[in-house]
Amino acid sequence: MDLNKYSNSILPYIPFFYVIWSDDLLSASEIEVVKTAIKEDDSLNNEDKKQLGAWLDKSNPPQNEEIKQWQQLITNSGVTLIESEAFPLEAFARKVANFYCNSCSSNELLKQIELNLGIQPNHYNHLFNVEVIQQPFSDFYNGAEIDAILNKPFLKKINTFRTFLKQDTFNWNIETNKEKAREKVLSQVKLLAANGWGALAYPKAYGGEDNMECYASIFEHLMFIDGSLAIKFGVQFGLFGGSIHNLGSKRHHDQYLKATGETNLLGCFAMTETGHGSNVRGIKTTATYIHNEKALVIHTPGKNDNKEYIGNALDSKMASVFAQLIVNGKNRGVHAILVPLRNDKHEVLEGITVKDNGYKLGLNGVDNGKIWFNQVKVPVANLLDKYGRIDSDGNYESEIKNPNKRFFTMLGTLVGGRICVAKGALAGSKMALTVAIKHALQRRQFNDSLKVQEDLLLDYPTHQLRLIPKVATSYVYHVVLQKAMKEYAQNTSNDKRKIETQVAGLKACITWFATETIQECREACGGKGYLLENRIGDLKNDTDIFTTFEGDNTVLLQLAAKGVLSDFKSELNAGGFVSVLKLLRDRFSDKLATINPAYSNKTDKDHLYNPKFHLHAMDYRLRRLTDTAAMRIRGYIKKGVPSYQAFLKVQTHLLEVGKAYSEVLSIKWYYEFITDLPEGKYKNLLLQVGALHSLSIIRKDAVWYLEQGYLSSTKSKAIRQRVERLSTELRPHAHALVEGFGIPEHLVTAPIAN
Amino acid sequence: MDLNKYSNSILPYIPFFYVIWSDDLLSASEIEVVKTAIKEDDSLNNEDKKQLGAWLDKSNPPQNEEIKQWQQLITNSGVTLIESEAFPLEAFARKVANFYCNSCSSNELLKQIELNLGIQPNHYNHLFNVEVIQQPFSDFYNGAEIDAILNKPFLKKINTFRTFLKQDTFNWNIETNKEKAREKVLSQVKLLAANGWGALAYPKAYGGEDNMECYASIFEHLMFIDGSLAIKFGVQFGLFGGSIHNLGSKRHHDQYLKATGETNLLGCFAMTETGHGSNVRGIKTTATYIHNEKALVIHTPGKNDNKEYIGNALDSKMASVFAQLIVNGKNRGVHAILVPLRNDKHEVLEGITVKDNGYKLGLNGVDNGKIWFNQVKVPVANLLDKYGRIDSDGNYESEIKNPNKRFFTMLGTLVGGRICVAKGALAGSKMALTVAIKHALQRRQFNDSLKVQEDLLLDYPTHQLRLIPKVATSYVYHVVLQKAMKEYAQNTSNDKRKIETQVAGLKACITWFATETIQECREACGGKGYLLENRIGDLKNDTDIFTTFEGDNTVLLQLAAKGVLSDFKSELNAGGFVSVLKLLRDRFSDKLATINPAYSNKTDKDHLYNPKFHLHAMDYRLRRLTDTAAMRIRGYIKKGVPSYQAFLKVQTHLLEVGKAYSEVLSIKWYYEFITDLPEGKYKNLLLQVGALHSLSIIRKDAVWYLEQGYLSSTKSKAIRQRVERLSTELRPHAHALVEGFGIPEHLVTAPIAN
Repeated sequence: MDLNKYSNSILPYIPFFYVIWSDDLLSASEIEVVKTAIKEDDSLNNEDKKQLGAWLDKSNPPQNEEIKQWQQLITNSGVTLIESEAFPLEAFARKVANFYCNSCSSNELLKQIELNLGIQPNHYNHLFNVEVIQQPFSDFYNGAEIDAILNKPFLKKINTFRTFLKQDTFNWNIETNKEKAREKVLSQVKLLAANGWGALAYPKAYGGEDNMECYASIFEHLMFIDGSLAIKFGVQFGLFGGSIHNLGSKRHHDQYLKATGETNLLGCFAMTETGHGSNVRGIKTTATYIHNEKALVIHTPGKNDNKEYIGNALDSKMASVFAQLIVNGKNRGVHAILVPLRNDKHEVLEGITVKDNGYKLGLNGVDNGKIWFNQVKVPVANLLDKYGRIDSDGNYESEIKNPNKRFFTMLGTLVGGRICVAKGALAGSKMALTVAIKHALQRRQFNDSLKVQEDLLLDYPTHQLRLIPKVATSYVYHVVLQKAMKEYAQNTSNDKRKIETQVAGLKACITWFATETIQECREACGGKGYLLENRIGDLKNDTDIFTTFEGDNTVLLQLAAKGVLSDFKSELNAGGFVSVLKLLRDRFSDKLATINPAYSNKTDKDHLYNPKFHLHAMDYRLRRLTDTAAMRIRGYIKKGVPSYQAFLKVQTHLLEVGKAYSEVLSIKWYYEFITDLPEGKYKNLLLQVGALHSLSIIRKDAVWYLEQGYLSSTKSKAIRQRVERLSTELRPHAHALVEGFGIPEHLVTAPIAN
Repeated sequence: MDLNKYSNSILPYIPFFYVIWSDDLLSASEIEVVKTAIKEDDSLNNEDKKQLGAWLDKSNPPQNEEIKQWQQLITNSGVTLIESEAFPLEAFARKVANFYCNSCSSNELLKQIELNLGIQPNHYNHLFNVEVIQQPFSDFYNGAEIDAILNKPFLKKINTFRTFLKQDTFNWNIETNKEKAREKVLSQVKLLAANGWGALAYPKAYGGEDNMECYASIFEHLMFIDGSLAIKFGVQFGLFGGSIHNLGSKRHHDQYLKATGETNLLGCFAMTETGHGSNVRGIKTTATYIHNEKALVIHTPGKNDNKEYIGNALDSKMASVFAQLIVNGKNRGVHAILVPLRNDKHEVLEGITVKDNGYKLGLNGVDNGKIWFNQVKVPVANLLDKYGRIDSDGNYESEIKNPNKRFFTMLGTLVGGRICVAKGALAGSKMALTVAIKHALQRRQFNDSLKVQEDLLLDYPTHQLRLIPKVATSYVYHVVLQKAMKEYAQNTSNDKRKIETQVAGLKACITWFATETIQECREACGGKGYLLENRIGDLKNDTDIFTTFEGDNTVLLQLAAKGVLSDFKSELNAGGFVSVLKLLRDRFSDKLATINPAYSNKTDKDHLYNPKFHLHAMDYRLRRLTDTAAMRIRGYIKKGVPSYQAFLKVQTHLLEVGKAYSEVLSIKWYYEFITDLPEGKYKNLLLQVGALHSLSIIRKDAVWYLEQGYLSSTKSKAIRQRVERLSTELRPHAHALVEGFGIPEHLVTAPIAN
């Protein structure tokens, strides 16, 4: 090889240029980074600078023969690549140069290039034909510090709780018998209650701390132990206790809330009916008022009108029963009534039938059951009457005159449960990703015939692409759910429709994300992922129903879409709707100017990583989808199609609106959170995470963006490449990122993760 | 309303035009259908024809006010829509017309329009504001006839088997204890063996019928009963017995095959190792030949080199062990050796350790275990030596000199198992779809305030879109797997690389399809889908591992891609590869002419439903992807990147090649099958099914097609609309289509499907 070709000062640049050109890595802003460094590098003379400058010309790139010579120069040096160096490529390049000229010292400007281009060892260790001393992961970031950033307001409390979970009672084991599983879960719930964790969201007067946000984080942590535990806990304290807390009056609180928080009163939440899963407004159970007895008669009229999938049904002494309240022969809509189910001996009371739902795909530690009521009489005082009551004369009264609005107000108080479900699903994803990533950092598979060691799973591009974007999305959703819970907890007005719309969409997107993620993790762990001991199986089965319960996702997305369409202002009845559509149409049309071709062709890194681009793209999509949905509905209505049918006609379109809405909301909240962080490496990391999430989402909807001309072909391809590249750039930090989820080490029991 | 506006002859056309225009249904070829009918209709005078013709002008469509008047005319007639009529729209239109003029008789030309446009009651019953007498599904097609078409060659045998399965032994029940589940499954396998079903693929001399194709159909049916049963059956007769049959000599057959088929000899197939899941060539177990003892010593060298996930490990008397065969100190590559595991008292033999794998996500009726060998000696006669043997002088000999080729030849004999796995996964999808569709034809949800009855789940567009394309794809894959098994069974040459490449890709695509489909079915059944009694849970958990075992899907797709790249001709070593790439590049480039804009904009129904379009699109994609992959690899190699690394760099690209290859193959085989069918309504149905499948696949890859300019925005949107419309058109036949899967009624035990 003709070494005289290259000056001694140029030599340390050679490995950098090899990496750059063998992978076509450079965009315009990246070329600028390199150019600036070269300009400032005093070790280079003008000739050198001219040479290096010429190698940066994308219109006239170095010849393959030249690049091949670089590769041979590197290979022939016999230098070992040590991934654990602070700046591994700069250190490697220096050693390669010194092999040939022995005059090269550390170069700050090369370090700068390495840092700014985000070049990682796993990016190039495959390109060189040299010995590599691998570092399975980088310790540049610290998981505990990330955890502290993500859980800031309640970190101390959460850490106390994490330590609390070290008790033997919470040890995980395989239990396939449902009776035994239920016994264990009940004892765990009781232990949590005895230590005040159940009542956390209740007022201080009833043993709580008035802290719904912290309650939600506690709930999330229970998922790391066992899905059944989280759900049983949520039913007892969140749904049953929550209905008393949110729908009842002070007398209900005084009578029941403390006992509920202490599990001295076990209760269930009897809303869903067999025949009317998602249609709560259409439930058939009745609560008929009998004035002379001051009583309500609870009754299941038809064979499919029984309560169904009621968690805690077998252990409960009492149920919060949702029924159509009939007063003086008039149906006042759905209300909740406390109905005793069992006596002190735990015998079911007269007129009530409870049946076990039997084995389920998951959550077998939760006692789900069906409940029938046959003319069961309870005192009228048992009506949870915050939003509607029966006065002493036997007349119904409510501050909310519109029955529709009343119904949604009552349901709005249950939004907290929906956030918890999403948090639980996300916790399942975090756990599964932790197991899958830690496994992929140990497990080796196949090898180059030249290498002694097989490659780590996480060094495969397909494996990175499988897992790392999902880690990024988990970060975004974590921040989003913290924010949602804060919004919900701090909203003291009756009108919770905005947060309800927001949570409806988020719950759907996040629970689907969980199903997809845990599945991906199972497959990424191969056969080991199939063994129950590695936990992914249980997480998969337990969270699977999260897409259905607390509101079926398909139904929730339509709810979200209708919320967007009505702009949170109008009641959703057909009459007022057409005018709302017209309004929307006018309002949006001016914002949907044609996209500038220069914009739809812009593929530079700075642009593609910019949160403004992400927000613009997703917001554009949301507005366009909303606009076209509104137009289509209006079109049908104008042709005489009844409004119910018109909505049905655009149902698939509405689902897209609901998803788009949640996606915009997610990155909006996430980037707001980042903006408030102090400058520094963690902020940078979270920005990268945000970019990977956002570009993955845009990529997922690329068909739409291409169809609309929002993205050119080139830009669409550039986005795909950036998703792959960001996954590679974050790969060395994958370990820190899953540690940042804050799952206590003693709960990560999967043998393959240890 | 001014009824004089419309002549009596025009009246029966009004409901048709209302349906057409309220939904913007017409493409050019559809307008032709209507135009022709109008032209031929003698009941219309010239004035009428002119009027109707004007209403067909897409550039000047009827005004909304006009359309609204049609709607009111229909509504005011008070006519009931009876979905069960032979031509419901024509009958309805006639009755509407007769309400106003009482002079209208049956019109053959309107029937023709109804038929040719594929207008179905569920298409328009939402548009009219009239009473509807619903027909949950149509009886136009008969499931049994479809089944007969799909399973033609072996229908009689299969029907015998279906009846055989009526025995109590095969009754399904929930069994969460693995020991009890295993006991049950073993007794079922023995019963099958006793009746000759296990030996079906073996030669007649050993109790079989030499019928691998029928064996595969039997295997598929076992999935309807229990996933564990199918797998246990497959391990015993297919893997263990298959290894003796395919890798052994006559003396092995004579000694073991009959006993295996009768379950007098239970065996397992010990290939996979803990540390080397997908890397069979890299397994570490050794079989060292000791000449003076004419013995082989089987040994597990390291702590992760044990055999793992071995099905039947706890029940087996013998194992077919894959190990590196060492003869005279030279490694001859992977060979299979029969190793006795237990004595007559079922005690594990000396030097052998077997451990239960414990509870798994699914398949708990299969006794998977780990096996260690500590210097276990067996006679050299136990070497399955069809492709490589040790002669009496202690020298190794084989007809296949190239060790690479020998390895792939041996593995090639196992392709049958891979087809069965795909068949099993597909059977799981069929069962889940049957349950979900039958449920969706009974379950009602929500309603229009004007209607008494809530709508059937399957009448929701989102629900149709969820399930019906997956029914279509199941049909395609059924035909494809029948064909693959036929190809495999009839291929008597040693060189099975072509079918191996084909099956590698198909197995990956079909098992992923199953995971996605069963998940969708679970969600589509809501909470009911979560109860084990409804079977979807078990199907989900049992088939989940199918994407991993018998070859991890990610690895298999790369295998398929490499097969495509090497055009089945070249060995995959780096040396010969570059020239193959060059060849490919030359060969493909001329076929990748730019797509004509008129073609990429063509959105007519006839074009979009045409198999030629589907084949052209997918084939174009495959060629382009292959071409660019080849170019990229060549680019890296030219820059000096070693070939192993170059392949790694394009790994995500290769997965796309593998998928594209399987998709082309699938529709090619499917349409070939249809071509051979007699003309008639079933052929038409299967063509519609093929179109829905193909358009769904093209839609799934629409980003790519748009990026390449193969599809214009308009065409891409038109394809989406056609997928939705075809789902709606097939909705009345969904019941017949799932009946066509041929799952015996007595096996569809899910309460929600009955």
